[in-house]
Amino acid sequence: MHQTRLYERVCGKLEEAMRVGALRPGDRLPSVRRLSERERVSVSTVLQAYLKLESRGLIEARPQSGHYVRWQRPLPPEPPPTSPAPGATPVTVSALVAKVVDSARDPDLVPLGCNQPDPDLFPWRRLGRIVAGIAREGGGFSYELPPGARSLRRQLARRSLDWGCTLSPEDFIVTSGAMEAVQLSLLAVARQGDAIAIESPAYFGSLQLIEALGLKAVEIPSCPRQGMDLDALERALKSRRIAAVLAVTNFSNPLGCVIPDANKERLVEMLGAREVPLIEDDLYGDLYFGDSRPRAAKSFDRRGLVLYCSSFSKTLAPGWRVGWVVPGRYRERVALLKFAQTVATASLQQLAFAEFLAAGHYERHLRALRKSVAATMRSLGDAVAAHFPAGTRATRPEGGGVVWVELPGGISALELHDRALAAGIAIAPGPIFSARQDYEHCIRISCGLVWSPRVEAAIATLGRIAAELRSGAEAPRVRHG
Amino acid sequence: MHQTRLYERVCGKLEEAMRVGALRPGDRLPSVRRLSERERVSVSTVLQAYLKLESRGLIEARPQSGHYVRWQRPLPPEPPPTSPAPGATPVTVSALVAKVVDSARDPDLVPLGCNQPDPDLFPWRRLGRIVAGIAREGGGFSYELPPGARSLRRQLARRSLDWGCTLSPEDFIVTSGAMEAVQLSLLAVARQGDAIAIESPAYFGSLQLIEALGLKAVEIPSCPRQGMDLDALERALKSRRIAAVLAVTNFSNPLGCVIPDANKERLVEMLGAREVPLIEDDLYGDLYFGDSRPRAAKSFDRRGLVLYCSSFSKTLAPGWRVGWVVPGRYRERVALLKFAQTVATASLQQLAFAEFLAAGHYERHLRALRKSVAATMRSLGDAVAAHFPAGTRATRPEGGGVVWVELPGGISALELHDRALAAGIAIAPGPIFSARQDYEHCIRISCGLVWSPRVEAAIATLGRIAAELRSGAEAPRVRHG
Repeated sequence: MHQTRLYERVCGKLEEAMRVGALRPGDRLPSVRRLSERERVSVSTVLQAYLKLESRGLIEARPQSGHYVRWQRPLPPEPPPTSPAPGATPVTVSALVAKVVDSARDPDLVPLGCNQPDPDLFPWRRLGRIVAGIAREGGGFSYELPPGARSLRRQLARRSLDWGCTLSPEDFIVTSGAMEAVQLSLLAVARQGDAIAIESPAYFGSLQLIEALGLKAVEIPSCPRQGMDLDALERALKSRRIAAVLAVTNFSNPLGCVIPDANKERLVEMLGAREVPLIEDDLYGDLYFGDSRPRAAKSFDRRGLVLYCSSFSKTLAPGWRVGWVVPGRYRERVALLKFAQTVATASLQQLAFAEFLAAGHYERHLRALRKSVAATMRSLGDAVAAHFPAGTRATRPEGGGVVWVELPGGISALELHDRALAAGIAIAPGPIFSARQDYEHCIRISCGLVWSPRVEAAIATLGRIAAELRSGAEAPRVRHG
Repeated sequence: MHQTRLYERVCGKLEEAMRVGALRPGDRLPSVRRLSERERVSVSTVLQAYLKLESRGLIEARPQSGHYVRWQRPLPPEPPPTSPAPGATPVTVSALVAKVVDSARDPDLVPLGCNQPDPDLFPWRRLGRIVAGIAREGGGFSYELPPGARSLRRQLARRSLDWGCTLSPEDFIVTSGAMEAVQLSLLAVARQGDAIAIESPAYFGSLQLIEALGLKAVEIPSCPRQGMDLDALERALKSRRIAAVLAVTNFSNPLGCVIPDANKERLVEMLGAREVPLIEDDLYGDLYFGDSRPRAAKSFDRRGLVLYCSSFSKTLAPGWRVGWVVPGRYRERVALLKFAQTVATASLQQLAFAEFLAAGHYERHLRALRKSVAATMRSLGDAVAAHFPAGTRATRPEGGGVVWVELPGGISALELHDRALAAGIAIAPGPIFSARQDYEHCIRISCGLVWSPRVEAAIATLGRIAAELRSGAEAPRVRHG
């Protein structure tokens, strides 16, 4: 315990020195021996601190030479707000999504397309022990019917304080992941043909759901800093009937934006006044890099009109399929639909997560996970700056797990996607994030992986392909025939 | 091994003697010593055989006296074919189902309402060891995206021979239980407002799904022996557009019927000629009491128009939520919908079931489970005959897990349900099995529990309440006010 605090103190001092410019990119750090003497800590404590800073991409070890502050290139500029075409449109993205998801199955690919945490970051030993203990005692074989295992709902209610809410176990319905939570919410509040307002670009899974349920999408202009443009949303609400708004409120996917608190409040008020439900997808809220978790829009909800959805799939174990919805005034209908559609969520995982959370493991795990994702995202920004063609823009999210990259004119994301696959790299091309398959010059890169030379090399390859496509796009084309 | 065969031989001989009337109800069986001498087997073999027959409800031990053939009362007559009102109707059963399901949550109730196997019959020790082994090695934490774990699909393909099919692993999509399989199938072939033909009475979960998806039900007359009346179905198909037929083909719920092979073939042909898909729910096919498994209607499918759905929820572990669909020509659409709605089925359970099946445990487990359910069903028929009012009818299924009881005129199933709950017994009242809440004089009793004095007493109580309700119903009512 004491040892831990010591090396963290050393890390903190060095980071501070970098922040204030006492240590600049390219500077050599003090030798391990000297720092150990200066800070009056053991050599191994200093080594631990250096390893930590290295793993976070802040310093690098050069053989026979020592440790250096990494060169942080100026990050690429951020993309401007989007401007999707107005009006409601049927969604036709599923076939393309299926093609992209299918193409990314090869386990030998560098997986920068699918946004899930590096399996090395799952607390699988501990979760494995918990699940083994439950199953060996005969637990988890019977149904945990909706609303789901009370032990888990109690833990979720406890965590809701962190979201700015004060929810009770009775407010929750456990689902098979966040997507089922969103699916149930959509089915509870909308009928076939209804229009759903959604950020643009939006998570392709949400677009697929809208398509699967026969709904239409109204894409709302959004920006990487503030999310959905609320003035544009208000105009859309005035111009036609909107059955619900679906928004990722914190570290959205793919833009990475957090809707500021004032906007969250305005959004909830604006919809409340019109009795339009808000389906809040807060899948990434726990993955903040700053000091505290951003609030949920649900925390401003006085009318029960916010259906709050989330899961453990981005933080603990995607394959365990446990999520939840807090459906507000739609609770009864959502519980009915859950029972009718999938009866119940797998019991074993509900009980195991409850035990994991009750023992306090989740917070400790999150701290480590956040640092890893933050380090990967920092290194990724750096690598994009180094390797992508001039004119490239990229988001700088303060949490979540994805970076949205806008390629300079003429580069086709689908072509880049195909050529990257051939080079052993999976990415997510922009058009799958839009009902109309816009964003054809954008790609999404996932930061779930622990940063490594292999990932760095993949980014360099992507940059090289992009540069090649650019010169191809700019070269005068000779028409045949 | 040898020992097993010996005691089974002794059982077989005694059963044969009962069948041909050499041993009649009330007869005393030979003493253990005498039978051991006559059959030239050990005393312990005879004891084992007697225990077996006792557990199956065929004989009973009387203290200080010996073993006797149980008094098998003549079973109640079977209910006649049903005659639901024709035409398509919106389904409005969910609220009543929710009330019934909610009321049955109390773990102290005798659970004759919910149809799931007695937890004592789950092979939970073995499944627990398998799941523990997988989780401790880090397995099951990542997604097994649709179509699902190949190891499981291989085992399912192997089993399909038993259904009369020759399916390949590629034909399957793993789902979160059979209900999700049916949900995906409905969503793949029907649009809001479409009419679905369904048996009458039908499983309440299917009716709920039809309601949840905004579809309509066309209830087809059905009988406990042959299932859906195909002439009536043909008339319905001629009179209006039917988007799909949804049928439990083997040991249906609640009627317990197996559609005869000739009818299965005719059904598949009739629908094929009209290009109407058949959603086949074969949840109970493995729970046959006879010599062999009834075929799936899918085995007659030449056009890919049958969407075959099933799961392990009635045979292994309901809370594990693993099922599957063989969607025929709708494969691509079903896979898309599965991904869009719940992303994937829990990985751990997919891998564990695959291992359980590959090791050959499933067949051994099924043999024991079938015997237990058959014994409970036999004892239940006996108990209904003994304790229910004259005029009661009851089905005699040759597999599955439920008995459908038609009460003599005037007895309200909902009233019986409420009074039974107050007496600590859960049953399923008839109206939840109909889109229009017909069958108000019927109840469904589940046979998942191992037969015991507690269950016997519960049936006696139900019979007593029914008798009281009958005399109440028949007494002249005095109107007040």
